[in-house]
Amino acid sequence: MTLSLTAAKSYRQPWPGLIEAYRQYLPVTENTPVVTLLEGNTPLIRVPSIAELIGRQVRVFVKYDGLNPTGSFKDRGMTMAISKAKEAGAKAVICASTGNTSAAAAAYARRGGMRAFVIIPDGYVALGKLAQALLYGAEVLAIQGNFDRALEIVRDMANSYPITLVNSVNPYRLEGQKTAAFEIVDTLGDTPDWLCIPVGNAGNISAYWMGFCQYHQEGKCDRLPRMMGFQAAGAAPLVNGQPVTHPETIATAIRIGNPASWEKAVAVQQASMGSFHAVTDTEILEAYRLLASEEGIFCEPASAASVAGLLQVKDQVPTGATVVCVLTGNGLKDPDTAIKHSSSKFKQGIQPELKAVAEAMGFEEGSGEW
Amino acid sequence: MTLSLTAAKSYRQPWPGLIEAYRQYLPVTENTPVVTLLEGNTPLIRVPSIAELIGRQVRVFVKYDGLNPTGSFKDRGMTMAISKAKEAGAKAVICASTGNTSAAAAAYARRGGMRAFVIIPDGYVALGKLAQALLYGAEVLAIQGNFDRALEIVRDMANSYPITLVNSVNPYRLEGQKTAAFEIVDTLGDTPDWLCIPVGNAGNISAYWMGFCQYHQEGKCDRLPRMMGFQAAGAAPLVNGQPVTHPETIATAIRIGNPASWEKAVAVQQASMGSFHAVTDTEILEAYRLLASEEGIFCEPASAASVAGLLQVKDQVPTGATVVCVLTGNGLKDPDTAIKHSSSKFKQGIQPELKAVAEAMGFEEGSGEW
Repeated sequence: MTLSLTAAKSYRQPWPGLIEAYRQYLPVTENTPVVTLLEGNTPLIRVPSIAELIGRQVRVFVKYDGLNPTGSFKDRGMTMAISKAKEAGAKAVICASTGNTSAAAAAYARRGGMRAFVIIPDGYVALGKLAQALLYGAEVLAIQGNFDRALEIVRDMANSYPITLVNSVNPYRLEGQKTAAFEIVDTLGDTPDWLCIPVGNAGNISAYWMGFCQYHQEGKCDRLPRMMGFQAAGAAPLVNGQPVTHPETIATAIRIGNPASWEKAVAVQQASMGSFHAVTDTEILEAYRLLASEEGIFCEPASAASVAGLLQVKDQVPTGATVVCVLTGNGLKDPDTAIKHSSSKFKQGIQPELKAVAEAMGFEEGSGEW
Repeated sequence: MTLSLTAAKSYRQPWPGLIEAYRQYLPVTENTPVVTLLEGNTPLIRVPSIAELIGRQVRVFVKYDGLNPTGSFKDRGMTMAISKAKEAGAKAVICASTGNTSAAAAAYARRGGMRAFVIIPDGYVALGKLAQALLYGAEVLAIQGNFDRALEIVRDMANSYPITLVNSVNPYRLEGQKTAAFEIVDTLGDTPDWLCIPVGNAGNISAYWMGFCQYHQEGKCDRLPRMMGFQAAGAAPLVNGQPVTHPETIATAIRIGNPASWEKAVAVQQASMGSFHAVTDTEILEAYRLLASEEGIFCEPASAASVAGLLQVKDQVPTGATVVCVLTGNGLKDPDTAIKHSSSKFKQGIQPELKAVAEAMGFEEGSGEW
């Protein structure tokens, strides 16, 4: 009787985190201590209102990577980087970052029992941006120097001391990030025709391409997507073909003038027959609001660059194509932009009576009709 | 050849959202238009550092419902409430809320093509709390009255106009929320011994119990958990046995003096042989920091009440028991608390030289050792 009860139970296979899920495609062994927060497996959400703006039976999805444990796609790379650091015996990790990387590094390092150091330029006062990393237990050191100097120092520290560098030069990060491409293929059953992605440091577009290529080699998909990279107009070195000295955009997560993975990204664009385009902050904010108010999806401004870009070049999308736009981060990461740029459907001073409220809502008097 | 390629593809079953996943247990039919953001399927994460504080081979997991699309467990109820509203032909929904409910209501209503009205008391100035709902396209009306008056008005509006009320009295919300219990059983393979949960309006504890009971009836699990409800000490009507006129706690999501589901919650506590306890703000903040800095999990302060409570009564946990603590919301919802209460591992004014940085990190001079 106990047996029959047991037999009736369901054991839906729970998601084990991306390293366990894609172990065979990742540089891990039985000896790698897996440090995981069950990242990955993020939803691929249909966005019909975006598709409608394109028409011609185009299907559009967003890969909502803001639902990773620390709120951005950085978790995919960090579970790999931190697991490998732990395997190598590191007691601490270090990075120079004021944003999503520092949060992910701190969360995974602390979970793995390591210290997490974050080096930033002195006078960088936006504590709000660092609050998440600090809460995760990061130790933040502000140096009397600029961001470039901070980057040099973390590299030197990692070379001279038993500390692992987890900035974007860490090769395991792209290995983890490529799993997002696997998930898209696993969910759709094949590759999308287009992959639209925000491009800042240009690592993620390279990671996705690596993922699609590897899955293609394995026979998991029949074709490769066209890789469409979108940069903010004020920080568009790949579009301009030269570094930007003072990058400026509301999309802080892609405000980068000299991408670390520049050459890799150009190779991806060429091999995939894709292209790079610049989108203005106005276009980014429009897409940001559209995703929230029409689809119920709240992303970081930088994430919306992928959708803004798709809409900019919508006439080039093949009829009937399937398009995936990557949303890299959670909108809750940047409450200031939400407050400043939400629509202002806010009425005050209304009399606390049914009739007054109904009128404020736009009902015709006494009719119950709009 | 095309066929053999197709056969080699993998089609991992993607998560379809909680209504599709648990359709047979929910009051939906083929005619219900499912409004979904692929909510649910949130990770159940092992938290060894919490378990270590208890010892005796106790296993502890957190159900991290902050990874739902709008950042809280409210999405579970809202996918149901909005789908049923749409099925009934509603063109708009209404609620009185300044927090997670208004965000979820707005996101799902807009996704379902409906208007979303939020009624709040005038002079409620914390726009930050409402920014998410506003960005999702909510129409916010501030009335000259208090919160109780706002609640009366939304009820009256729903009675008199073709608008659906999605406040906690909407019965479909608990139906959606109960699926979290299903997911826990599906993942563990059986019921946990204890379910620890923050209690504010007392709806969620009732929903979880309903879920465990239904799964038990279906033979999906062998037993029922002990339901342990934790309230903030300054807002603990269920512990005190009487309403609290001026509830006060840092855990705003459970700052409720007179819970709507009071009697249901007491019935759950009695039937499950569980109990209610009060945790202080200090205990809540300690658990909040502990989860972030030891486990890499960033939740709302109210969520941490479940872990704070578990640690308070840890001597009562049976040896070898499996405990699940519910984390209801994402920490990114409340950046102010993160800024105020993170540890202050922040050093400034460091010379931009390797030696100075190494010293600031605590390395002994010239040794490379800590």
